[in-house]
Order: sequence, then structure tokens, then C-alpha cells
Amino acid sequence: MKAGIIQFAPELGNLESNYQKTEELLKQAIDADLIVLPELANSGYNFSSKSQALALSEPIDDSNYVKLLLKMAVANNQFIVAGLNERSGEKLYNTAVLVGPSGYIGKYRKTHLFWNEFDFFEKGDTGFPVFEINNTKIGILICFDWIFPEAWRILALRGAEIICHPSNLVLPYAQQAVPVQCMMNRVYGLTANRYGTEAGVTFSGRSFVSDPKGKMLYTAPADQDAVFITDIDLSLSNDKMITPRNHALLDRRPELYHPLTDTDI
Amino acid sequence: MKAGIIQFAPELGNLESNYQKTEELLKQAIDADLIVLPELANSGYNFSSKSQALALSEPIDDSNYVKLLLKMAVANNQFIVAGLNERSGEKLYNTAVLVGPSGYIGKYRKTHLFWNEFDFFEKGDTGFPVFEINNTKIGILICFDWIFPEAWRILALRGAEIICHPSNLVLPYAQQAVPVQCMMNRVYGLTANRYGTEAGVTFSGRSFVSDPKGKMLYTAPADQDAVFITDIDLSLSNDKMITPRNHALLDRRPELYHPLTDTDI
Repeated sequence: MKAGIIQFAPELGNLESNYQKTEELLKQAIDADLIVLPELANSGYNFSSKSQALALSEPIDDSNYVKLLLKMAVANNQFIVAGLNERSGEKLYNTAVLVGPSGYIGKYRKTHLFWNEFDFFEKGDTGFPVFEINNTKIGILICFDWIFPEAWRILALRGAEIICHPSNLVLPYAQQAVPVQCMMNRVYGLTANRYGTEAGVTFSGRSFVSDPKGKMLYTAPADQDAVFITDIDLSLSNDKMITPRNHALLDRRPELYHPLTDTDI
Repeated sequence: MKAGIIQFAPELGNLESNYQKTEELLKQAIDADLIVLPELANSGYNFSSKSQALALSEPIDDSNYVKLLLKMAVANNQFIVAGLNERSGEKLYNTAVLVGPSGYIGKYRKTHLFWNEFDFFEKGDTGFPVFEINNTKIGILICFDWIFPEAWRILALRGAEIICHPSNLVLPYAQQAVPVQCMMNRVYGLTANRYGTEAGVTFSGRSFVSDPKGKMLYTAPADQDAVFITDIDLSLSNDKMITPRNHALLDRRPELYHPLTDTDI
């Protein structure tokens, strides 16, 4: 299959501009079976207030942005993962939706919020679902989730072969760390980052694709739009043998890992 | 405090030579408060048979190698972590011992065995203990344990500030991955590797020290002895704030991590 990422700079508060940019770039990604857009692609990131965040949010079932994604998924005959400022009643979630040629498939709500996101969003309550698209299992993590190895591991244990990673990265570490997560779990990683600056916060661009051996297949520029699509070799994701006698997942010793799920540490 | 690593090439089957080399290099490490030696430093690594492995093993309480370490810990007034081919009855463990100026302190038995080690060793049964030396908490992982993020995380959750990592590394990944583990958990990592070739297996040398932000403070040569000692700033290990509002450990959501300890996946 072919999968890839779209990098752009969503404009804070300009839903219409982000809608148009997303459509324009998705038209360049027609070759992809699976394409990933950045975090909060509909709204921009650095809200000045909860009321601004609310004003820029959309319920999934009544979202012009999701309708656009659905239209493009049909037009391009592809699956799309994109970040959405999601309204659910009076609550907001930093969400990624998955849509395909047959319609809306599901969502992931960011588990680990970053910095000022605590002022705007609820912590995600979806856990770490794995979705099957055609015969491929994919998981989704959003931006800062990357620093929690637990998240990657759970998706790999649940059979994810590709992890889609809509991002608005600020810290300097992810480009080094995400390929390591992919290598340890033998999964592909599609990190679709944004670039640009919003009210003093600069996003790092350099979206990237990591293969299941931790090799970086592509790195985007730091400060311009990018569309990258590559062949995905699922046999690499499904070969979990680190050596002829070591399996990345089955060599785990979960009977010794109980502190990881203790809630009172 | 000052801590560091010793890199050398243990000679398979020559206990006396390894004993002498260890003594010679520890005499160059007198400035260290904590020093780490490679995995299986007493015996060498690539045994041709279980009987050879047995012949080169030593019980901790009757080991000339451990006696040497104890002598040097007193002479240098320091703590020493070193890999030992440990015999326990008829069983062997790939173990690391910790000794200090006041005597033997404890052991860690390698949890995740690598490749042909399954032919010689039992899987470790110690779990992931944390030891307090003076006022510093240290954990131990051995070589291939590095690829299991669970191991690093558990030690960090238990308060380890420094992770000692005796190794005989063969795969090309650890020099990239271990600094990422240290960064995610905000711990120092002391990876004492060996170099040389034994019966077709080549060890990668390039022992290294990672700081809690993932910065590599030192990398040894690929193929010669090395002693490296550096200042350790424990305030870096104890500052778990990734951002002013994100704590590396307290931001975890263990209530969502249960698959990690399921034994039937």
C-alpha cells in the first residue's frame, strides 16, 4: 500500500482557510491509500482562551471539516487521518478522526495533553483503539503522546502495523525518538507535523516517516507545505523478530511489569 | 557525584585474564563514585556449550571475580556494577552484581535474554530492583533489556536516578535508542559495552553515557579499552518536568495501560 503525510500551517481561527488548504493538499495526495494530516488541522493550535477554543470547535457529526475529509476520501478513494478540535457537548477534545471511502470510521482522543492544552481540552477517554482499513491495522497517537512508550506498545500489542501521528510538535526530541519507538515495536510511523508560529509558539515542521527498523524514510522541510507518499511494506511491520530467536513482543515479561499499571505510584 | 564506564574485551574462557584486566582498569577509575563494567565481564560471552558456560560460572558468594570487585570497591572507595556469569546450583543467570565500600549490596538477573543466551541462562527472576547507594538510587539493566521500554520505565517509577547498563552489544540500535529511553524517563544511563569478536560475533564497543535529556556525554572508541568518568548532576534526573506543566511520570495514565501487564496477549 501507499501511505504518507501532509504538512502545512493551519491558521489559528480561520476555519475556512484551513478547509481550503486541506482540500488543495489532499488533491496532491491522490496516490495515497492512507494519508495523515496534522493535529488540530481545522482550527489551529494556540488558543488564547477557552471561549476561542470553543468557537473553533466542531462536533464530529456536524463538522464542515469532517465533511470535507469524507468528500476527499471518496474522491481519492483513500483513508484519511486528521486532527480535529472536537466539541462534545460543552467539552472539547484534541481528537483525530479516521475516514475512508465508505464514510466515517472512528476517532482517537489525545490521551496525554501538552502544556496549555489542559486549559482547553479534556484528557482523551478513548484509550488506544486499533482500526482495520482494508486488511491493514492502524493506530493513532497525537503529538505529545509520542513521549509515552506505553502508547506505542499498546498499539503494537493490539496489532497495529502503522501508527498515524498527527502533530503540532514544539519540543526538539520527536524526530530522534519516534523512529526508536517504531524500531522497538516494529511498526511504521507517519508523523504529520505542522510548521509556523502562533503567538510565540513555533512548530518544528520536519514531518517524517519511520520504518519498522527505525530508519527515517523522509523528512519534510522545517517551514513549508509538504506532501510525501511512500510504499509501505507491511511484511516489515509483521516481522517482529529482532533476531532469529527474539520477538519484539513475545519476549516481553508482563508478569514483571505490574508497576506500569499501578495507579498509586 | 562522579560516575562512569569501563570498556574492555573479556576473553572467553580466560577467567584469570579477565580478572587481571578488570583490576588494571579499575585502578584507572579511582575518581569514580560509581563505575560500570560490561556484561559477563568475568567469563566472556559466546559459549560453545552449556558445559563451557557452567565451567566459567561462579556463585556470587564464592566468586574470585566478586572478591576482586569487593577489594577494589574498598581500595577505590566506590560502588561497582559488573556483569557476572552467575551459577546458582545447576542454573546459570546472566547477572550484574553491585558492590560498594561496605561490601556486597545486591544483584540483578537479566530479564530479557538475547539470541543463544536461551541455551545457557535462565530468564532473570529478580524483577527490576532499585538500590540506594549513599543518597542516590540506581537501577541495573543488562544489554538487550534496553529494547524493552517497560524496563526503563519501571526503574524510573521506582525512583532510579541512574541506570547502569552492563552490555555486550551486537545490534546497531542501542546507541540511538538508549539516549531516548533516558530522555523519556529523565535518568542518566551508563552503558558499559565490550568490544572484540568471539566465534563470529562482533561486539560494537562505543560505550556511552546519556544524560536525562538524551544528550550523549561520551562515546568510547569501537575497538579499544576505555575508562570514562563524568560529573553526574542528579538535579537533572530529579527534574521530571518536560514542560512547566508536563511531568514525565505523573502525566502517565496507567488506568489506560492495562494491556501492558496482560499475560495472554
